[in-house]
Amino acid sequence: MPGSTVIYPPKPKYSFLDDYSEGAHPQLLEALVASNGTQETGYGNDRYSQEARQHIRNHLGRDDVGIFFVPSGTSANAISIAACLRPHEAVIAASSGHIVTRETGAVEATGHKIINVMPENGKLTPLSISQALEANWHYPHMAKPRLVYISNATEFGTIYSRAELAAIKALCVENGLLLFMDGARIGAALTSPKSDMTLRDVLDLVDIFWIGGTKNGALLGEAIVVKDPRLAEDFEFYIKQRGSLLAKGRIIGIEFSELFRENLYFELAKRGNTAAQKLSRSIEAAGYSLLVDTETNQMFAILPLKLIERLQQDFIFYVWEKYDVDHAVIRVLTTWSTDFDRVDEFARIVMDWKAE
Amino acid sequence: MPGSTVIYPPKPKYSFLDDYSEGAHPQLLEALVASNGTQETGYGNDRYSQEARQHIRNHLGRDDVGIFFVPSGTSANAISIAACLRPHEAVIAASSGHIVTRETGAVEATGHKIINVMPENGKLTPLSISQALEANWHYPHMAKPRLVYISNATEFGTIYSRAELAAIKALCVENGLLLFMDGARIGAALTSPKSDMTLRDVLDLVDIFWIGGTKNGALLGEAIVVKDPRLAEDFEFYIKQRGSLLAKGRIIGIEFSELFRENLYFELAKRGNTAAQKLSRSIEAAGYSLLVDTETNQMFAILPLKLIERLQQDFIFYVWEKYDVDHAVIRVLTTWSTDFDRVDEFARIVMDWKAE
Amino acid sequence: MPGSTVIYPPKPKYSFLDDYSEGAHPQLLEALVASNGTQETGYGNDRYSQEARQHIRNHLGRDDVGIFFVPSGTSANAISIAACLRPHEAVIAASSGHIVTRETGAVEATGHKIINVMPENGKLTPLSISQALEANWHYPHMAKPRLVYISNATEFGTIYSRAELAAIKALCVENGLLLFMDGARIGAALTSPKSDMTLRDVLDLVDIFWIGGTKNGALLGEAIVVKDPRLAEDFEFYIKQRGSLLAKGRIIGIEFSELFRENLYFELAKRGNTAAQKLSRSIEAAGYSLLVDTETNQMFAILPLKLIERLQQDFIFYVWEKYDVDHAVIRVLTTWSTDFDRVDEFARIVMDWKAE
Amino acid sequence: MPGSTVIYPPKPKYSFLDDYSEGAHPQLLEALVASNGTQETGYGNDRYSQEARQHIRNHLGRDDVGIFFVPSGTSANAISIAACLRPHEAVIAASSGHIVTRETGAVEATGHKIINVMPENGKLTPLSISQALEANWHYPHMAKPRLVYISNATEFGTIYSRAELAAIKALCVENGLLLFMDGARIGAALTSPKSDMTLRDVLDLVDIFWIGGTKNGALLGEAIVVKDPRLAEDFEFYIKQRGSLLAKGRIIGIEFSELFRENLYFELAKRGNTAAQKLSRSIEAAGYSLLVDTETNQMFAILPLKLIERLQQDFIFYVWEKYDVDHAVIRVLTTWSTDFDRVDEFARIVMDWKAE
Repeated sequence: MPGSTVIYPPKPKYSFLDDYSEGAHPQLLEALVASNGTQETGYGNDRYSQEARQHIRNHLGRDDVGIFFVPSGTSANAISIAACLRPHEAVIAASSGHIVTRETGAVEATGHKIINVMPENGKLTPLSISQALEANWHYPHMAKPRLVYISNATEFGTIYSRAELAAIKALCVENGLLLFMDGARIGAALTSPKSDMTLRDVLDLVDIFWIGGTKNGALLGEAIVVKDPRLAEDFEFYIKQRGSLLAKGRIIGIEFSELFRENLYFELAKRGNTAAQKLSRSIEAAGYSLLVDTETNQMFAILPLKLIERLQQDFIFYVWEKYDVDHAVIRVLTTWSTDFDRVDEFARIVMDWKAE
Repeated sequence: MPGSTVIYPPKPKYSFLDDYSEGAHPQLLEALVASNGTQETGYGNDRYSQEARQHIRNHLGRDDVGIFFVPSGTSANAISIAACLRPHEAVIAASSGHIVTRETGAVEATGHKIINVMPENGKLTPLSISQALEANWHYPHMAKPRLVYISNATEFGTIYSRAELAAIKALCVENGLLLFMDGARIGAALTSPKSDMTLRDVLDLVDIFWIGGTKNGALLGEAIVVKDPRLAEDFEFYIKQRGSLLAKGRIIGIEFSELFRENLYFELAKRGNTAAQKLSRSIEAAGYSLLVDTETNQMFAILPLKLIERLQQDFIFYVWEKYDVDHAVIRVLTTWSTDFDRVDEFARIVMDWKAE
Repeated sequence: MPGSTVIYPPKPKYSFLDDYSEGAHPQLLEALVASNGTQETGYGNDRYSQEARQHIRNHLGRDDVGIFFVPSGTSANAISIAACLRPHEAVIAASSGHIVTRETGAVEATGHKIINVMPENGKLTPLSISQALEANWHYPHMAKPRLVYISNATEFGTIYSRAELAAIKALCVENGLLLFMDGARIGAALTSPKSDMTLRDVLDLVDIFWIGGTKNGALLGEAIVVKDPRLAEDFEFYIKQRGSLLAKGRIIGIEFSELFRENLYFELAKRGNTAAQKLSRSIEAAGYSLLVDTETNQMFAILPLKLIERLQQDFIFYVWEKYDVDHAVIRVLTTWSTDFDRVDEFARIVMDWKAE
Repeated sequence: MPGSTVIYPPKPKYSFLDDYSEGAHPQLLEALVASNGTQETGYGNDRYSQEARQHIRNHLGRDDVGIFFVPSGTSANAISIAACLRPHEAVIAASSGHIVTRETGAVEATGHKIINVMPENGKLTPLSISQALEANWHYPHMAKPRLVYISNATEFGTIYSRAELAAIKALCVENGLLLFMDGARIGAALTSPKSDMTLRDVLDLVDIFWIGGTKNGALLGEAIVVKDPRLAEDFEFYIKQRGSLLAKGRIIGIEFSELFRENLYFELAKRGNTAAQKLSRSIEAAGYSLLVDTETNQMFAILPLKLIERLQQDFIFYVWEKYDVDHAVIRVLTTWSTDFDRVDEFARIVMDWKAE
């Protein structure tokens, strides 16, 4: 029975498996403890959630956007998308997109078709979106493309440049499409060494997006940013209807208040990126290749199977896919909480390893 | 714009508004802090969630049930109900039921009709369920009744006796109906002075139910208990698809582990009940009436409008409905965290009050 | 197994059971045969459907409305309602409404809650709608009322006067509600002796409605009239998505072309009304009462049980509900195809019958 | 506004565009006219529908299957698929499948994900299905594959051999998958010169399928054949809920009664196949190629653009896709009603045509 088998991961091993293996950043926990005793209005109307919204608006440089907290990325995606669409409208997404591959058909469960397009380095392009439009023209026999879903950073750790995003936006405007950004790892994207965008740039270039807390230091929670005031007006209905309006909304409010009061959110993300950069340089220094350039906190490295086995003695990570007879691609994921000693240890094993 | 108006409740006032105004019980927070640094498997496969499941199974006295954690009561209800039903099947519920009145059509959003029946003291009876069956016989023009939804304690704070629940169960078995219990306040129900049931009795008499954490000391989280092994086998799919599978499932796991390791869950609920009993005795001692007997942590009192105004100077509570020209019904809700000094203060005002 | 038992209704009996026991009016069948050989564009873009739309527009006196054909009343209702609503929006309907009682939860299956209100003679009133609004105010915990569903003629054969409809419309405008009319029996309503409305009046007073073909002489088919050009623009998407866009749309086009080229639609409806009037006068002349005044083609008569048994020897009709120990209410339904000799025969039995 | 522009196809041209341009086979119309006056029970319980079910059961050689009539192919697909699935379950289909490309997201609108696989000649294979299973293993993050959708004949006019279908069925049984066949053109498939299957073979090898009437001589209507008695027991609920249960079910009953009383259904399909064979042989005789072998009533021919222009002066057909600089693929579709004189005329133009 699911959930009934007790699986203790072999604990001495260190995990680079994902960015949600640890709890919360200590500053968030402290704030949670400190605020615990006060009585607050429920369902996100507490003072902490209000403060958090104001902090985020300060970072965005605009006061007229709706900000809504939900507990998970899947709820952020499904709620945002369904809120934007009428029943016959469809989403365009990369076939590698999280909503396509890892959310149990949550978007389809709201009644909407996802039109898959082939990604380039995890990304959509104006060309690939145009082709999707051309292939779905047949009124009324085909669902009508209405919203473009992108993730930034992508599922491959790559990021959109400002120019790339602007080009997609221009195509969307021309074709009456909304642009939606899954920001589960938006912190990593915006603090990437390659990044030329700010949070405000994102706001200017998309219609609706969310800022991921779960994967960047929070216990749980994502903040959806809604530009269209008419959409924002009714947005809490969608959240409540989908079971994502927490009675004690204060929890997420407190966390985002800490993350965005100053700059903690971006500092945490940067730390994860730095660890991945460090690992990537070691891999390349040792003569191995990366599948894609490491732009954020995900590294996809092509390693000999024997070396992978050796690393698995001390570390947990995904073996992503077979590469050739002797090699596979591994995914290594670093975070705000990554232990740099273990990063060094990982690098040392790679450097020292010798094929027999 | 929703969420943009900062509404600070006038803070000197003490709130008897609901059972989710405070944070978590301190023991839960301590455990959260203590466990924060470990690396855990995501999505509810962490050690804490496993331990919590085992503790709950110990309380249930059965090891073969599926236990699943979700963040909110609305998600617990909508997911459990939709998981049980085929598309043409309907739910029978009291017209006062939470799924009917306070969940933004979440059940209908999964495609299912709710057949409303008039409650008695917030409760369903074999007779009222039978009448619903008789009124929905017309194959295939009427949705097919398949599941009975009850809440215990009910929205009026009343509870089901073992005999009442057994009678409903017998009717359900006879008519091929599943029985589902919303246990947002199951702790209050089972520790009511009137209760003659244990958690195991509930398990024996219903098909699926949930144990509410949010309203009884947790930051968030409810534990759904699924008896049918085939339903349990796929249950996490439903949770994930609805955006309710937390990446850091450890949070809810830690909380339920503390609540059910010993008896904390029931001790907390009992404390809320005691406060409501105390308040109710004062009301009656002062010569006023209750709308319904106070069986758990909700008191519905019929008070003069002037007295209500006086109480509102120091307390926050719902004015539930008009009673007559000079009286209204108020709802006062107590919890594990209720300050008994404020209970005494409330009682004193009632006792001392004199109509001019 | 459903559909596997061959149930031949005892054939010598004459049926007053419903208004779809016979095939089509002969003029429609002739047109179907005459047009059978031509090649036509599919999916409702054929010349007959275009002509039918023009004829209906002529009757409406407006050229700028969208007209869409679907095969059944349930599809007309579910498609129209879902096309008007966003996911969190609800429908207000009488608890006797067809969408509540006879469509297998089709509206809920599109994700929307129906808020039930008690009807008066099958009708909604500004007061009952206002009460529903007041009871569903709680943002964002209650689904948002957005559309009012009425049927004309109602399920009890009663009709809305122009003043009644205008009052409801005024309330809707004031509260941001759309008004939708189920016109399965709109022909009967508009040709009722009590009617003071035309088809154009209906168009002026509601936002969207449909004209029933199935119950007034067609083999199948209903014509949905959509005023809002933005809604009309995408309406065929909804029809196609719900499986209601016939490849050979010509069939429904031909039928509606015949019904609305001249005045056939209303002549047929009037004939059904006349038969019901005739029956009703006989019932009253014989000293029996009607449950509600017979305004269209449905008669609800209160008769002694023994007389009902006698009538059942020769006729088929619904025994609607028990009235008292010795009486029940029967529903008798007449149509364009009703045999007036059988009407006379029915009346004679009632007149001649003597309680023993 | 859709439906408001009167588009008369230039009438002297002959259409090979689709298989639903004409009305019904005359024998069906005659039966419709002859039966028009009788009073029948509604919603498919009339004598004609019962007879039609019995005739189809005779063709299937089994009396214990449920047979249900619906008005359109899209409703047949969406209803059948949704009836088989629980909310988290997905459909595997070829990316060229009708449910993927031409039904406006009707399956997704019931909440279910379609997992796309690349077709071979329009067909699925055990290998492509296995690969889809392997790519969707991740419990509970991916929707669970549960049903395989195939169409026979396919959208490219190709057919499954008995061995091919048996191999797919074996894989399905092994992996707990249901197998569903869209039989919009099952008549053409089973009367193909290449066919080695009977209707009974189909019944033995799939779990649920439908027999298309619309594209083979009926005005409208498809017959869904359901083997699982538990699924059949509630099947009419699904049909009614989706607006596809016609009040005058007699119409479809009469048509299928005529089509299956003797062998008319297969004679009509064979005639369409013969026309396509004739055309294909001409094309090849004239030195041109087919994109795929013509196995049923669809021909995909690769022709010079200039020749296509010449043909378009007299005929209507789809220009399917560009082939190279000078050539395109056209789709020519023949039916039971195809005029063989026009087939000859088409062939003559091809034979006589000379590039300048």
